Amino acid sequence: MTVKQIVLASRPDGAPGLQQFRTEEIELPALKEGEVLLRPLYVSVDPYMRGRMRDVESYIPPFQVDKPLEGGVVAIVEESRFAALKPGDKVSGMLPWATKFIAEGSKLQPIGDVDVPDSYNLGILGTTGYTAYFGVVDILKPQPGQTIVISGAAGAVGVIAGQIAKLHGARIIGIAGSDEKNELLKKEFGFDEVINYNTEDIPAALARTCPDGIDGYLDNVGGDITDAVVARMNMQGKIALIGQIALYNAKEEPKGPRILYPILMKGLLVQGFLIRQHYSRWPEARQAIAKMISEGKLKSKETIVEGFDELPNAFLGLFKGSNIGKMIVKI
Amino acid sequence: MTVKQIVLASRPDGAPGLQQFRTEEIELPALKEGEVLLRPLYVSVDPYMRGRMRDVESYIPPFQVDKPLEGGVVAIVEESRFAALKPGDKVSGMLPWATKFIAEGSKLQPIGDVDVPDSYNLGILGTTGYTAYFGVVDILKPQPGQTIVISGAAGAVGVIAGQIAKLHGARIIGIAGSDEKNELLKKEFGFDEVINYNTEDIPAALARTCPDGIDGYLDNVGGDITDAVVARMNMQGKIALIGQIALYNAKEEPKGPRILYPILMKGLLVQGFLIRQHYSRWPEARQAIAKMISEGKLKSKETIVEGFDELPNAFLGLFKGSNIGKMIVKI
Repeated sequence: MTVKQIVLASRPDGAPGLQQFRTEEIELPALKEGEVLLRPLYVSVDPYMRGRMRDVESYIPPFQVDKPLEGGVVAIVEESRFAALKPGDKVSGMLPWATKFIAEGSKLQPIGDVDVPDSYNLGILGTTGYTAYFGVVDILKPQPGQTIVISGAAGAVGVIAGQIAKLHGARIIGIAGSDEKNELLKKEFGFDEVINYNTEDIPAALARTCPDGIDGYLDNVGGDITDAVVARMNMQGKIALIGQIALYNAKEEPKGPRILYPILMKGLLVQGFLIRQHYSRWPEARQAIAKMISEGKLKSKETIVEGFDELPNAFLGLFKGSNIGKMIVKI
Repeated sequence: MTVKQIVLASRPDGAPGLQQFRTEEIELPALKEGEVLLRPLYVSVDPYMRGRMRDVESYIPPFQVDKPLEGGVVAIVEESRFAALKPGDKVSGMLPWATKFIAEGSKLQPIGDVDVPDSYNLGILGTTGYTAYFGVVDILKPQPGQTIVISGAAGAVGVIAGQIAKLHGARIIGIAGSDEKNELLKKEFGFDEVINYNTEDIPAALARTCPDGIDGYLDNVGGDITDAVVARMNMQGKIALIGQIALYNAKEEPKGPRILYPILMKGLLVQGFLIRQHYSRWPEARQAIAKMISEGKLKSKETIVEGFDELPNAFLGLFKGSNIGKMIVKI
């Protein structure tokens, strides 16, 4: 059987472009015992994948040149030699960018336990949602009346984290890149205040929206925005470090103020967040999020792009802020 | 009664010098109810006091120009209008640089509960020792076989922290500024390996001494040394941020690599350390440290300078690395 796959053609130096991707046709071998043949329904593109394009040690191995990219995928089983899965079953997993592919059945998570659209398993009911949940509940631990700032607030994690923190009674301030996004954050997702980092002076906007300082910060962005937030944080505040998208495309090692100095002076806690570290507690997060959704307390937001061939463009769009909420490609 | 006091003559811009200090004579008023007249025996000088010379918000109010400096002091009561203290009692507290002074009795801690030299109450049995204790036990939580790196290892906190971490079964690597200091760290205080930051290439020296990476880092220094340590840290490592002495005298905002990026990629924990945050648990630390001393497991190290007039020079010496262990002025 001939299928298409998208491989990493070369590692980017600075901002990635279409030249980093190449579509190939390959022949799939016959299924072995324990394997299943899968057809993807939805594929997730995420900022952290930029990190995997670098050839450096991290919490996840780097992509290899000439090998297929991979990420979160919801797929349907077409053939199975794995006892627990049958054709028609839907699963999610960390899987390759291909029109069909073979996977080990034991490494897949069956979905369908929660009555939501399939794509939610890549977003609000997947590692994106779990990240928002643990970032808020385990690290920020917001208290009623506290002020929580979220950078990349209109991104996949930000939209969910803001809603969860709000449910804890905190004031939520979102920082995003357009007035359109910010209007949605206020009207649809209950953010109390919003800042447009493209048109506003960040320190002044933080002074306006956080008159009592900042108690918790969920950071998806890094760079100048984070410098300004840290400068306004209260003593013993907490930072959940989720992403640093402003730095991912830097050609040279990014420099800035030595931020450990104010972190010391204010006695801040900073926790670099790895979703895999919480693996054993994913069911807890899944259950809690499903409950909030079913009670109408938590809303999903997705930007869905259609077509397998659009995967590279959808990924590149993440760095232009072209998504609101979770960016997903429907195959 | 006429006494001498040392006031902040002006705020330093960059490295502080003798011009920052001025000695004055003042008249002490009569004691009010609840007050005691104290004569200092030992005065502590500490790097964090450089921060208080800046006019910025922090965990502790800034020193005021033309007002006396203050710090940790062990003093003897000469007169008392506070019921719980009588002449001859010894106390410690955050007290002014003066040859005699009046203090509120309720704000003083009686000493003498542990049979050690009085000066220990400013070092190993004072906030210095408590800082080392909580930094190691609460933040780094070293496990047998783990590698712990300590910058400013020959400083007041470093010497104690290294010994406590060693008692947890960890390998201890100290970074200090002279071979003399480093020899002492190995021979007297049980450090497994040492690095001289003045003569060695730090990344190479860390590769040599930490072949399995670094699990915990107690940072007194900041700057380039910390960049190199973070680059060699293992996934989910922990950083106890105690001091950033390399940055305190910067004339302009110090810049460096954006360190939150590797902190995220490695899922590190960073805790800015404030000793006041642990106030309710100081007795626990005091008891634990006294026990380790009495069992011969923990040794104190002090550099003692004599004479009230030497206070400014002793303080300035901290930034030249002229102390080993705790720098104390005997009055």
